[in-house]
Amino acid sequence: MKTNHHFRIAGHVLFMTMLCVPYAFSKSAGPAKDPFDETVHVADYLEPAIPRPQQAKIASDKLAALRAKTGRAPNILIIVVDDMGWGDPGVYGGGVAIGAPTPNIDRLAHDGLKLTSFYAQSLCTPSRAALMTGRMPPRSGLTRPLLTGENPKVNPWADEDTTAKLLSAAGYRTALAGKWHLGEMEGTQPHQVGYDEYFGILSVVSEMSQVIDGNLYPDLVNKPARMAAVSKLVLPEITAGEKGKPTHVVQHLKTTEELGMLDQQFADFSDKFIRSSVTQKKPFYLVHAFSRLHNDNYPAPGYAGKSPAAFPYKDAVVEVDDIVGRLMKTLKETGQLENTLVFFTSDNGANEDVWPDTGYQPWRGGKGTTWEGGVRVPGIAYWPGMIAAGRESDGLFDITDLFNTSLAVAGETKRIEKTRYIDGIDQSGFLLADDGKSARQTVFFYSETSLTAMRWQEYKIHLKVFQTDVARQNIDESTLVPTGTTPWVFNLYTDPKEQRSSGHRYFEWGLPRVVGFIKAHAGTYQKYPMKNLGLDVPS
Amino acid sequence: MKTNHHFRIAGHVLFMTMLCVPYAFSKSAGPAKDPFDETVHVADYLEPAIPRPQQAKIASDKLAALRAKTGRAPNILIIVVDDMGWGDPGVYGGGVAIGAPTPNIDRLAHDGLKLTSFYAQSLCTPSRAALMTGRMPPRSGLTRPLLTGENPKVNPWADEDTTAKLLSAAGYRTALAGKWHLGEMEGTQPHQVGYDEYFGILSVVSEMSQVIDGNLYPDLVNKPARMAAVSKLVLPEITAGEKGKPTHVVQHLKTTEELGMLDQQFADFSDKFIRSSVTQKKPFYLVHAFSRLHNDNYPAPGYAGKSPAAFPYKDAVVEVDDIVGRLMKTLKETGQLENTLVFFTSDNGANEDVWPDTGYQPWRGGKGTTWEGGVRVPGIAYWPGMIAAGRESDGLFDITDLFNTSLAVAGETKRIEKTRYIDGIDQSGFLLADDGKSARQTVFFYSETSLTAMRWQEYKIHLKVFQTDVARQNIDESTLVPTGTTPWVFNLYTDPKEQRSSGHRYFEWGLPRVVGFIKAHAGTYQKYPMKNLGLDVPS
Repeated sequence: MKTNHHFRIAGHVLFMTMLCVPYAFSKSAGPAKDPFDETVHVADYLEPAIPRPQQAKIASDKLAALRAKTGRAPNILIIVVDDMGWGDPGVYGGGVAIGAPTPNIDRLAHDGLKLTSFYAQSLCTPSRAALMTGRMPPRSGLTRPLLTGENPKVNPWADEDTTAKLLSAAGYRTALAGKWHLGEMEGTQPHQVGYDEYFGILSVVSEMSQVIDGNLYPDLVNKPARMAAVSKLVLPEITAGEKGKPTHVVQHLKTTEELGMLDQQFADFSDKFIRSSVTQKKPFYLVHAFSRLHNDNYPAPGYAGKSPAAFPYKDAVVEVDDIVGRLMKTLKETGQLENTLVFFTSDNGANEDVWPDTGYQPWRGGKGTTWEGGVRVPGIAYWPGMIAAGRESDGLFDITDLFNTSLAVAGETKRIEKTRYIDGIDQSGFLLADDGKSARQTVFFYSETSLTAMRWQEYKIHLKVFQTDVARQNIDESTLVPTGTTPWVFNLYTDPKEQRSSGHRYFEWGLPRVVGFIKAHAGTYQKYPMKNLGLDVPS
Repeated sequence: MKTNHHFRIAGHVLFMTMLCVPYAFSKSAGPAKDPFDETVHVADYLEPAIPRPQQAKIASDKLAALRAKTGRAPNILIIVVDDMGWGDPGVYGGGVAIGAPTPNIDRLAHDGLKLTSFYAQSLCTPSRAALMTGRMPPRSGLTRPLLTGENPKVNPWADEDTTAKLLSAAGYRTALAGKWHLGEMEGTQPHQVGYDEYFGILSVVSEMSQVIDGNLYPDLVNKPARMAAVSKLVLPEITAGEKGKPTHVVQHLKTTEELGMLDQQFADFSDKFIRSSVTQKKPFYLVHAFSRLHNDNYPAPGYAGKSPAAFPYKDAVVEVDDIVGRLMKTLKETGQLENTLVFFTSDNGANEDVWPDTGYQPWRGGKGTTWEGGVRVPGIAYWPGMIAAGRESDGLFDITDLFNTSLAVAGETKRIEKTRYIDGIDQSGFLLADDGKSARQTVFFYSETSLTAMRWQEYKIHLKVFQTDVARQNIDESTLVPTGTTPWVFNLYTDPKEQRSSGHRYFEWGLPRVVGFIKAHAGTYQKYPMKNLGLDVPS
């Protein structure tokens, strides 16, 4: 299952000299600890974190007090929008400014914690795998989106734990509503990898629209021979399942009108799931994964032209915001608002390639690149009574941290197995202490199995960059190329749009730090090798 | 004084055919009113506005009720930051995300009205002239920044009214604190064109730092012959004056430390001015014009490294924000918070050329261009009890509107003379009605006397574009060129970064509208010609 998959790192002349060969590196043979390194190494299988005992104490006290009050473990609701850009919500500078107000999402931020440096990976599948497993995509093997009808030869989930699996074992009701896109074949579906319940779509909405919408995809839809062939691969349908039971088809989707109804149906499911969990007096872990705002967006009834912009994407933003409001209302009506950690995010940046059916990020690049536009996404934590209102923080938070943090909030960290490397960090202290700070020192970004970039403090370091059509800043015809003899470095405070690489000019003091952090990260693959599903496209 | 100055408009083949020659156009000979034109023509000298009688009634009722309560006219405090980018404040997506928190500015927005489409002109002098006179730069003649020691042959102010002049005549105490940059010669200084009091700098901080800072400008400072020559032109000093009295020098500035103290001194002045106005029981009109964030930024005592980014610009943002908080405290302590309209803005976008001593805008381009990055700036209206808290609007608001709106709020609109064209529009109904909407239909942007771009609804139309180093999106080596046979059109809701011109693809229905709006605008110069100060650089 695990293979010595090639660790791809930029082939800089200078940099390679500094790094030697990553494989050759091992902890014991390494240099003395860098004085800039704030982290503590606790165990080989755990990503080193910055110790913050005071806020950890505050968090555990708060959680204990809440449990004493409610008599049970808190609920966790993770809301993942598909392809939403950092700038789409009003609190991130979008909203009314770009023709799609987001009052409900904004309210979560105003009454909770708005994270300005929350990071996902640059594409759906790797990012969602990271969220579910707490592990970097090369470790789970899910390094790029699974394509139409593609089934990897090995089941990536055979030796993975999901948050849902661990919390289900701990007595939680767990469910995934909406988009999965982490495997369609038997043994890889949500209710087969830890979720008690699943209701949604196994792939992605664009795989369905391409076989339904003859206006957008005439060269497929209007060619009977192609349609006959593709119908063996693509199944446009809502499916559902329960743990231990077979998957069943809820609805075959035949029209764009039906595609427009997807998220309303997912919302119905989540609404019922929350209510029934409360009736059963069981804590729940629910991942509500919108099919929107991934192309192609078709309006639900009543939503065409509902946004000031009157474009399908913008109408869909308004619908997403309405559904967020609806789920909050459900929590309120069931008395669970104060017993539920709500986390709102997106799986990657807006996909500028599919303009105008796409979102907005102020940053350079978009989905599929590891420029900020591809990986920096909204991240809002909301929990009345537990997370102070009106907080904002630029502290680093990686999507893998949702694995550890969910388990910590549930009091089930002990269930994490020691056999796999966990890249996530417990950020419960960051979230729950009023002045909580991030326990994370670095964030790493991948393209397939290539480490392309990292963030440390306010610096973004690129080992390989996506060369794009810079005038349009999108990834049409983009190529991934090494940065040259030194990495490109951007100070994201003075240069948030990554316009002026200032590696040696302003960051000479930082380059040796970065080399050390990358060496340590690369070193983890020695004991915990990458998993090769054969997804890498030969180059 | 007034000359038939050439109206420069893009020389598109198609467009010129549609427009004929702008000069030849006159209202009476024009086509039937476009059904998209929502405005009403009230008088030749007034920019047509969208009539909104209901909100106008709400505004005048509110103002009357307040005056009945306080027994006097309300105060007006206009805060103008120099070169602040749209994205710098936290509520516009910056703040902690870019290493310079702005809690005081954010509070104004949270407790007031955040405008997401407030527009200035692209450079200091034209923009400030527009703010003070309610007129487009080609009308006042102040079409570009006045340069070191440059005195136009004609006094642009000889036949201009400023808000300060009209309100002073109406019994207001009026003052300008800080940067002027609208004339240094006799007869053009603030206390000579309407302000009762002035305390500040007549030009701009960079004209001072270049003769003081030998690290930044060694080729000037360390060359005695050059310094001797320039010392006849540039006077690094704080000056002050009162109406009818001679200007006096408050302080000769000799060090960068003294430059770092400028805004603290301006804040001291404004603080005292507010307090003494209240003691004298007179309403005040105060323009507080920061010297920051224009390059070069030197830290005031205690501010070096105070921002998380620890860069001079960012430390200056923190200082600006602190001073905003201080002025609000002064209003509170003097009991004037509820009797003062506070308007916060910037004179143009961040100047990306002087990186890293510069701000941030998510848009394309920066200061000096009429891309959104040059002209779209923060605009926040705050008035507890009069402007509902938590409002956001994308309604169009031009910097000239501050002229009319200030006069309307003061109840002195009748003082506007009918002999000059006023481009500003009274937006008091927009600000004061809880669901107020903009009365403005279009915004026009100039480069010197060239009309380069306009905004209508969510569309930005370029007649000439600034070709920039697109990778860096700044104006290094930029050139201003016509857009070709048709204008470039960007839908700012779906394409806020102006990346994909979609003129004929998505906006064919709108092009005839735009032609009509430009014709009408150009037509106003027939009866009200441009004023030629001889500032145009020959091309």
